[in-house]
Amino acid sequence: MVKKSIQILDTTLRDGAQAALVSFTLRDKVKIALMLDELGVDYIEGGWPGSNPKDFEFFKEIKNYSLRKSKIAAFGSTRRKENKPEEDPSLNSIIDADVKVAVIFGKTWPLHVKEVLKTTLEDNLSIISDSIEFLRDHGMEVIFDAEHFYQGFKENPDYATRVVETAWRSRASVVVLADTNGGTPPHEILEITRKVREASSAKLGVHMHNDIGCAVANSLMGVVGGATHVQGTINGIGERTGNADLVQIIPTLVLKMGYRVLEGSESLKKLKEVSTMVYELAGMHPNPYQPYVGDNAFTHKAGVHADAVMKNTRAYEHIDPSLVGNRRRIVISELSGTANLVSYLDRVGIKVEKKEEKLKVALNKIKEMEMRGYSFDIAPESALLVVLKELGLYTRYVNLRYWKVINENGLSLAVVKVNDQIEASEGLGPVHAVDLALRRALSREFPEIQKVTLTDYRVILPGQVKNTESVVRVTIEFTDGNDSWRTEGVSTSVIEASIMALVDGLDYYLQINKKLKPMLTKQTS
Amino acid sequence: MVKKSIQILDTTLRDGAQAALVSFTLRDKVKIALMLDELGVDYIEGGWPGSNPKDFEFFKEIKNYSLRKSKIAAFGSTRRKENKPEEDPSLNSIIDADVKVAVIFGKTWPLHVKEVLKTTLEDNLSIISDSIEFLRDHGMEVIFDAEHFYQGFKENPDYATRVVETAWRSRASVVVLADTNGGTPPHEILEITRKVREASSAKLGVHMHNDIGCAVANSLMGVVGGATHVQGTINGIGERTGNADLVQIIPTLVLKMGYRVLEGSESLKKLKEVSTMVYELAGMHPNPYQPYVGDNAFTHKAGVHADAVMKNTRAYEHIDPSLVGNRRRIVISELSGTANLVSYLDRVGIKVEKKEEKLKVALNKIKEMEMRGYSFDIAPESALLVVLKELGLYTRYVNLRYWKVINENGLSLAVVKVNDQIEASEGLGPVHAVDLALRRALSREFPEIQKVTLTDYRVILPGQVKNTESVVRVTIEFTDGNDSWRTEGVSTSVIEASIMALVDGLDYYLQINKKLKPMLTKQTS
Repeated sequence: MVKKSIQILDTTLRDGAQAALVSFTLRDKVKIALMLDELGVDYIEGGWPGSNPKDFEFFKEIKNYSLRKSKIAAFGSTRRKENKPEEDPSLNSIIDADVKVAVIFGKTWPLHVKEVLKTTLEDNLSIISDSIEFLRDHGMEVIFDAEHFYQGFKENPDYATRVVETAWRSRASVVVLADTNGGTPPHEILEITRKVREASSAKLGVHMHNDIGCAVANSLMGVVGGATHVQGTINGIGERTGNADLVQIIPTLVLKMGYRVLEGSESLKKLKEVSTMVYELAGMHPNPYQPYVGDNAFTHKAGVHADAVMKNTRAYEHIDPSLVGNRRRIVISELSGTANLVSYLDRVGIKVEKKEEKLKVALNKIKEMEMRGYSFDIAPESALLVVLKELGLYTRYVNLRYWKVINENGLSLAVVKVNDQIEASEGLGPVHAVDLALRRALSREFPEIQKVTLTDYRVILPGQVKNTESVVRVTIEFTDGNDSWRTEGVSTSVIEASIMALVDGLDYYLQINKKLKPMLTKQTS
Repeated sequence: MVKKSIQILDTTLRDGAQAALVSFTLRDKVKIALMLDELGVDYIEGGWPGSNPKDFEFFKEIKNYSLRKSKIAAFGSTRRKENKPEEDPSLNSIIDADVKVAVIFGKTWPLHVKEVLKTTLEDNLSIISDSIEFLRDHGMEVIFDAEHFYQGFKENPDYATRVVETAWRSRASVVVLADTNGGTPPHEILEITRKVREASSAKLGVHMHNDIGCAVANSLMGVVGGATHVQGTINGIGERTGNADLVQIIPTLVLKMGYRVLEGSESLKKLKEVSTMVYELAGMHPNPYQPYVGDNAFTHKAGVHADAVMKNTRAYEHIDPSLVGNRRRIVISELSGTANLVSYLDRVGIKVEKKEEKLKVALNKIKEMEMRGYSFDIAPESALLVVLKELGLYTRYVNLRYWKVINENGLSLAVVKVNDQIEASEGLGPVHAVDLALRRALSREFPEIQKVTLTDYRVILPGQVKNTESVVRVTIEFTDGNDSWRTEGVSTSVIEASIMALVDGLDYYLQINKKLKPMLTKQTS
């Protein structure tokens, strides 16, 4: 049986942009819109043209692009109580945005109507119908968001239902039930949505917030209750604790509940990439624990799990990670057995027996380093170097003789001697300067090292997260355009730890490309 | 009507410690256990004594403390199929842990029984009953975790129910239905738990994982379906995407659903503190978007929300933040109106009219700085300094004339001249060295500055999160033991940006303590 289609409205650019710590430039907004269109979302809520000039600019700018599938929608409020629709600045700014779809919000909760809007319940219904009719008469499709719907319904179910009916009769295309405070538990969402479904013939949507950690589940319960339109944001970014995360909702609707959403499995495969890009543009670090797309979503740490997963992937994986563009990871840590090392080595093409004695020696060395402050979960490539040394598969390519850095107002200067080269460089900071000097020195011998760039740099300061440590741990992420890897350094000095991680990162790249790849090619040819 | 009590089992020290990137020392584990006891949780699952020596040490060490309320439980598997219970290492290690409660897991899912355990369905039932009986005969309370229960039930409901009945008849005190893969949607959890509730007289518990982002909601649905025992971890830390977050579940059970949990409102007030401490000990940054306890959980950014919240807090807040030990925050950003500034100034005791012209000038200056890379959401105190300058409430206490840093293998040396003092200091890194030198210089004039310490330091590198920026942004968090605050610096040099943030942080402290507090005391006296 093929189930119903569920429409998706993405409000990353409007409700998402209201998140603390998030701000998008105009260029960011356009880039996100194009990506959402590529993903196949039905509606892209582009912003609130009445509230700030950047949003207005977006509607102008996006006209220069022809979208494949998504409709652009402009957001705004219903008219102010004292205005006629045609005189209302908010409604007029929606029309000025010159798009085909409007999303307008109105009140459902008597408390809100009386204390925030300061008007009567009847007047509120006129405000809603007037505003929708006005936009419909200007040829727009109108999606109506019933703010605080679930609180409103619990206090006065008849009035809340009248709001739905009023909007539907005024020719809204969808009436969206919003849990604006995000405080309604999932079983109440299910029950109330079902009641509205039975009482009204309106096409229903849901718009959930995450204040009790249930935005994703509440959106699913809304669908089970009869909604066929879901609003949310990429990564759940939004005001306070965020909105419903479409990256989590969409795969569950498709893979677990059998609904048709976007372009099905084609869209799912793009989710990890879209999620990563939105984090980057929002200036946020990706959440490694994010369901479906997080770096740890299919990561196995405990020895017993890693072992079972290798026997049967369904044992500890609810889906095939590639369905959502993700992949399985086995990490190395003090909880690991040699099974984790074997699986890890397998990924770089090296076959070793689980019982190999040298592996046990390497594992002990790794555990001993973790006691001194290393954490190889996040930087498995530094652990791999330890293993390669034990297995006799290591060649020393990078021999750092000395380094020195001088910082003065606005400038860092580094001098390094690596192998037989002395090089100097200036940089934005000491680590940047050393990185440039190091790579300049190494590139004489290994020109391919110029392809390597730093993509992330983290310092855990002593006293900040672990009161008991007197050392710092620096983690650096690298990429050569195709692969990415992370290495780590631990020292009492930040710069020394950074340089250890830098050297390991370049060393790892050379071990893989100068040593292992040629060796493996030889074996197989 | 007073609703039923719900038992809470915390497995932060066992399932939580299986999270990628998390590792607890023995001292950390003891500290967390004492905090959980203070919070009033019913059971603390302390570890898996058979799996690693650190866990075994924990059970020995915790005996030196007398707990107020919590029972300590040891975790392990049922016996191996080839062993008699009395010969089984896992069961014996549980007994060796010498605690009153055992939590053991067994198989429910035919796939798992056949392909991972490689035995028959009947033999699996004997393994379960033998193992429970054996521990009961040694005087222990036994909690039975039915692994992969929901997948098992969907495939073979009769067998899954027989597993529950077998465990219950073998005198388990609770039979816990586990969604081990975390892939079951909330409506199925509700339906299946209800069916088991109807089919069996066992006391039921639930153990959820977050692989589809529903662990919190699924735990709540388990309770609605009839479970009276909930397992989870603080902050939801755990393997892959994590476990059910008790910090989110407990307040919803109490405040939204009327259950009796732990010590009610007394426990709720401690949640924010417990959450923060576990993040610190796990070496993780707190999640600002975490429901209930996150720094942004009651933060208002959009002008329209900030305005409405000031009219009526229920408008955009689902609970009073102080119920869970949190507080309201109004942030300053390009989306702000002057209402946000007024509310922010009010917190430091300054009353200003929303329409004050100087506020608008300050707001424009703030917006202009955000265009250059500042993000005052995260560092409102740097914005406050801008406002104080515009309002004429600012005195220059910190005048940095120059600074210089030299780094050599393992050592950073800083020389600064601030006001008329020249000071030098060594540090773990350049910023640390400058911080020490700065505070040493300032403490001659302002001895109170010695109370100030750095608690967080973050760098956003160019090209890392915003490809379009050529500057870096440094954010520093400070505390004086009572209050904490954050300031920011933006520059093309990491060290320069760090020093800007450092100077702002010390400056803010002096503005509040030397300028505003004496001024306000004078006004009110």
